[in-house]
Parts: sequence; structure tokens; C-alpha cells
Amino acid sequence: MKILVANLGSTSFKYSLFDMDGEKTLARGRVERIGEAVSPCTVQIGDTKTEIHVPVPDHAVAVRQCLAQLTDTKTGCLADASEVSAIGFKAVLGGKYSGIQRVTKNVLDSMEELNDVMPAHNPPYVRAMRLLAERLPDILLVAAFETGFHQTIPDRNRYYGVPKEWAEKYFVVRWGFHGASHRYIAERTAEIFHQNDLRIISCHLGGSSSLCAIHHGKSVAASMGTSSQTGVFHNNRVGDFDPFIVPYLMQKLGKTQEELLTILATQSGLLGLSGVSGDLRDVTTAADNGNLQAKLALDVLIGDIRKYLGAYLVELGGADVIVFTGGIGEYQPMIRQKATEGLEQLGIVPDAVKNKMVLGVESPIHAESSRTHIWVIPTNEEIIVARQTKEMVEAQNVK
Amino acid sequence: MKILVANLGSTSFKYSLFDMDGEKTLARGRVERIGEAVSPCTVQIGDTKTEIHVPVPDHAVAVRQCLAQLTDTKTGCLADASEVSAIGFKAVLGGKYSGIQRVTKNVLDSMEELNDVMPAHNPPYVRAMRLLAERLPDILLVAAFETGFHQTIPDRNRYYGVPKEWAEKYFVVRWGFHGASHRYIAERTAEIFHQNDLRIISCHLGGSSSLCAIHHGKSVAASMGTSSQTGVFHNNRVGDFDPFIVPYLMQKLGKTQEELLTILATQSGLLGLSGVSGDLRDVTTAADNGNLQAKLALDVLIGDIRKYLGAYLVELGGADVIVFTGGIGEYQPMIRQKATEGLEQLGIVPDAVKNKMVLGVESPIHAESSRTHIWVIPTNEEIIVARQTKEMVEAQNVK
Repeated sequence: MKILVANLGSTSFKYSLFDMDGEKTLARGRVERIGEAVSPCTVQIGDTKTEIHVPVPDHAVAVRQCLAQLTDTKTGCLADASEVSAIGFKAVLGGKYSGIQRVTKNVLDSMEELNDVMPAHNPPYVRAMRLLAERLPDILLVAAFETGFHQTIPDRNRYYGVPKEWAEKYFVVRWGFHGASHRYIAERTAEIFHQNDLRIISCHLGGSSSLCAIHHGKSVAASMGTSSQTGVFHNNRVGDFDPFIVPYLMQKLGKTQEELLTILATQSGLLGLSGVSGDLRDVTTAADNGNLQAKLALDVLIGDIRKYLGAYLVELGGADVIVFTGGIGEYQPMIRQKATEGLEQLGIVPDAVKNKMVLGVESPIHAESSRTHIWVIPTNEEIIVARQTKEMVEAQNVK
Repeated sequence: MKILVANLGSTSFKYSLFDMDGEKTLARGRVERIGEAVSPCTVQIGDTKTEIHVPVPDHAVAVRQCLAQLTDTKTGCLADASEVSAIGFKAVLGGKYSGIQRVTKNVLDSMEELNDVMPAHNPPYVRAMRLLAERLPDILLVAAFETGFHQTIPDRNRYYGVPKEWAEKYFVVRWGFHGASHRYIAERTAEIFHQNDLRIISCHLGGSSSLCAIHHGKSVAASMGTSSQTGVFHNNRVGDFDPFIVPYLMQKLGKTQEELLTILATQSGLLGLSGVSGDLRDVTTAADNGNLQAKLALDVLIGDIRKYLGAYLVELGGADVIVFTGGIGEYQPMIRQKATEGLEQLGIVPDAVKNKMVLGVESPIHAESSRTHIWVIPTNEEIIVARQTKEMVEAQNVK
């Protein structure tokens, strides 16, 4: 079975084509600058990279262009577009819909209702998926929601202290996101240790970051709330914040509520606090060159990570494995070191030398004396979406 | 030196009179229903309790009435009102003013500017202190801010992921509150252990709740943010919440921003989630009688406490002492038990039998095998305010 996994931006369409027999990646590609006069469309199949420039007015044309390149008689890897059993999307927040869903009008309406809560994520997905459903009715579209892995979070970690009906009617609970990544870490860690009952703290640190407590392969707590702007702070999103200061700040800054929340969702986090950049590499360089504000932003990021690490140590009654993943988790030894040092009494001891050498590869980084193992495991969100999409195809075929 | 410590409500004035030579409590009293036709004014001096009913139109009259009762030739304990060196107030949030402050126009203006951030606390204090400063100019008024103890919190635990100038210009940082209580716990625990370098997690659990990490007698982290509605959830205040759902909820519920934040500040927390009451005793009774929603509210409260307990275990690299205090911390063994159980691997083991027997008295409640000691220590916020007020009087006299 061939599955296309899609990653949608407001003007981009990135994809990977999987052959699920053996979980091989057949192709990776992207269509960019959708809506502009000419769009670059690149695809890599095996060692061959092809790039063409054609007009791509919308996401439906982008998918057709992608399928045309994949079925090209000379450079393609498919005989016919019908070989693609489904397109799987890593969707974010669906309100009453979570887990794996066939993309229907109801699912799209429910996502759309939450546009304001997830301004960076839901609107481009809803727009593009609506278009694809309309224009490409023969292709099965599957949404694998980022909240799906967190459906096992127990009530004590799910509810806010608000009137209970808000949770039931309006989905105002701690959803947790990065579900595909945390699920991959849960499954891969169990494989590495040949053990299913591990207590794992998965630290997905990247442009956006979240920590997840995992027990017996299931999520039991996650750091993001109803919206994915919360928890540990992000490249440009605020992380946990106090809603009661919003009216006061609106008045002080002369902004509307919408304008203020937009600043909190786009100009805050690492970017806002450092005043330098939302890219950790730039901020680290600035801090190394003596920029104190950049240093402050790094300290707060590390402080945020340690706060949730502690919360999840208590949630799990101690951890068997702490895993770092994501762009920062895989490639920033300094962050991993500072997030886990000084915890000898809690059984956690990183090995500074090992840690420094590990960049983007699967490897332990703890000292021999550490009761808790510490690992770097590169995440693979696409294979999770591909597996979930395959499940949905099989379920549809049974019907 | 005699110090009057005042606790202001919007229609009440409660007080304790201390003789600071030996820190003896000379009297305790209260004036209630201020502004109504007749107000009950009670005072207890030694074993003698006196109650009279007179018209008390405002807080200035309440203070005069209090001083009249304290200097009553038959039942009083003071020869003259001038023996009172100062009135100390446990004030809450003062913006650029923290620590111990003489109450001046500038201090009151700064507090007033934050009325919206602290709707339950700042407005009645500002109103009453302004009146007292105007009508009783001969009495030294001292504000001991609840944020004062937390001025030592390092940047990594103080800043939000927002543009840095918001912190500097508008005081948008994690302030932490309950400073008098956490300071008392820091000082009293050091006395009990004859040790100044302890790592303490102080759990002040009551109508409002907060946890504080203390090292070398100093606050290094606290669970409340800029406003005291945040952190662990409270009797009727929400605790940590996601600001990005506010516009969405405003629309769903047909409320203004102010109305929604009022619900979050007055009808949420234990009250909102349980649907039963903001009093833990009522909620516990309901849960014991099979009310699942009451049970849920207790679970979330315990979950919130454990989350911060974990964060502070990591902040401190392990804890020497965990202290429970406040109405719930001192009198609710079930909450203490559930907040600390299952943590053997982290060196924390409560003794269920000892714990059950301790109600409102100073006592250890941990098992012998526990590396971290667990104590109940009844708090004494008034003596802290009295001591701080005495310091201010002495500083004023030196000038």
C-alpha cells in the first residue's frame, strides 16, 4: 500500500510517499509559493532530484502537480496515481474529533470553529483540505490529529479549574499536541529497550516544544493546553501565560485583544524575550557573544523545560528514560545538558562528554551512574501519520 | 513596641495587636459589615471577649473604633492609642513597589494601576488605605507586600516568554504571592532543623494556594504568576489557564472579556469544577458520597499540587523538607497523602498513620525511610507582617 503524507503550509505543500510494505520512503517533495505566478515543485526519488517551475494557483493544483511528478514516465516511481491509497495529514486540533478521521465536512467544520484558538495551524489546513476534498473526490483524505495520542491522559491532568461544562461543550481541556512525535518516541523507546511498561519523559524541543509523560506506551500528561501556544515557550509563541494581564496590557499598549494575542502567538517566546531571533542557533550565538538578553531567553527556556521535567517525574513516580527529540532536542547538547544537570539525587545524571558528541542520531547520553537513562532519538512524525493513515484505509476497506 | 497588623476586606477590618518585645499577641479583633447601619465590633484581650454594635460607615471609623476598644479603661490593653507605633498591612501587588513600604500616595497609585490584575485584592486595600492615610495622618501605615519574599526568584523562573520590555515597563513577570506565609515557613523550618541551607518546598494550601521552592531561606520559585489567579487552582479562582481560549469562550458564552475573566476569578477553581462548593470540606464530603464531579475536582487539585511539587524538586535538585501549611495543608491529611504518595523512588515517603493524626499542629508526617522530611507547620502570616512593620518603624526612627 502506498500512502502520501502531506504537510500543509498556507502557501506550501510538502509530502513524502511511503510504500507501507517495509515502510520504505519512495519519494519526498515540495511545492512552494502556491498562488504566486510561478511555483517551484521539487521531488526526490531515490537519488534523483527533479525541479520544475509551473503556475500552481492553489493546493488542489499542488497535489495534482505532485501526482504528475510521481507518475512521470521517466523520473516517477508510480505507474498510476490510483496507486496512492490515501493522503494522510498531520492535522492539529479538531474539537470533538481527535485520533484518526476521514476528512469530512463535519470534521472540517469542527476544525474551522477552532481557528481562533489555533491561528497558525487550523486555518491553512481547513482551507486546503476543503479544496482537496472538493476537487479530488477520488482520493481518500485522512486527518491524523496531533491530539490523538493524548486521548489517554487521565482527568487529573486534562481538566482546568473551570466550570465543567466548558470542558464538555467547548473542549476546554488540556489537549496536548505533537502527538505523532511523542507516539513515535513511545514506540521506538519500547523497541530499543524491548520493554512495554517503561516510564518515559519525551522532550520534543524545536520550533515549537512540548514535554509528554508516557507510561505503558500511553500519554498520561502533556505540557500544551487547549491551544498549542502554551506549555514550554516556543520559537515565537509565548508558552504558559497569565490571562488576567491581557486587559491590563491591552490598555498599556493600546492594542485590541486580537492584536495582543497575535503578539503573544507570533512575536513572543524565544524571539520576543531574546530580542534576537526565534532560531535557537542565533540566540545561542548571541548569548556566547555576551548578549545578556539572549542569555536570559535561553535560561528561561531551560527553566521551562526543567519545570515540566519535574512535573512528569512526579507524575510517573520517577522515570526510566528521558528522551530528547526535535530540532533542538536532537542537535543542541547544551540545552540537553542544562535541562538534566544537578539532578543526581533524583537519579538523573547526563554524561557531558557523550552528550556533546551526539547530533541527530539515536544514542544514549547518560552517565553510568544514572538510574534514569537519557537518550537522543530523532523523531519520525511522518511514519506515524503514514501508519495511522494505513489503518484508516484498512478500516475503510473492511466496511 | 506595639504593632497593629490589619487584614482588610471590602467591608471588614480584622486586626491583631502585637507587643514586639517577646512577640506576644495582646489582642485580636474584627469590625464587620462596614457601611451597613450597624456593625459588630469584637475584640478579644486575654480571656475577655467584648462585642459592641455601633455604626461604622467606613474603614477610618473602623480603625478608630478598634483603637477605642483597645484603650477602653476597663477592658482595654493600651493606656493610649499613641502606643501603637504603626499599622502593618499584608498588601498584595504594588507594581514597582514590593517588599516593605511606607504607605504613600505613590505606593497607592501604583497599587491602583493594577486593580484589574488583582480584582479581589487591590481595590479594597487601595480604598481603605487611602482613607486611613487621609483621616489618621498621625499613624504610620506600612504595606508588607506579599511579593516581597519572592524578590530573590532568579530570572529563569521570573520571566514569561514575552517581549522583555513588558517585564520592565509593566511588571509582567511571575511575582509569586503568599510571601508572608512562605517566609514564615522558611524561617520556622530553619529553626526546627537548626539549619539555614535547607531545600524546602512550602505548600501553602487554603482558600487560595501556592507552592514555593526555598533554598538558603530564600524563595527561588513560586507557582503564582503576575496575578494571584494562577498556579494551582484555588477555591473559586481558575489557576493556570490558556489565554488563547478567552476570545473563543467569549463568543461561545456570549460574554465580554471582563465578564469572562470575572467568571475565571470568582466562579472557577474548586467551586467551578466541582459544581458543589469552593470549600474543600464540602467537596470532600460530596466526593465521599459518590459525587463524581466533586471527586474530579479533588483529583485535579491534587494533580496541580503534584505538578508544582515536581517542578520544585527539579528546581532544588531534590528537597530536604516538604512543608504543608494553610487551612487545607494543616487540616486535610487526605490531600497531603495523595500529594506525596508513590514517590518512593524520588526519596519521598509519607507515613499514612502519622499523617492522619496531625491536624493543625507542628509535626513531621514522613516515614522513617523517607529521605525528604515531610512536615505540617501551621503558618503565621501576621507575625511576619508585624516583624516587617517593626523593621520599618526602626528604619524610620533612624532617619
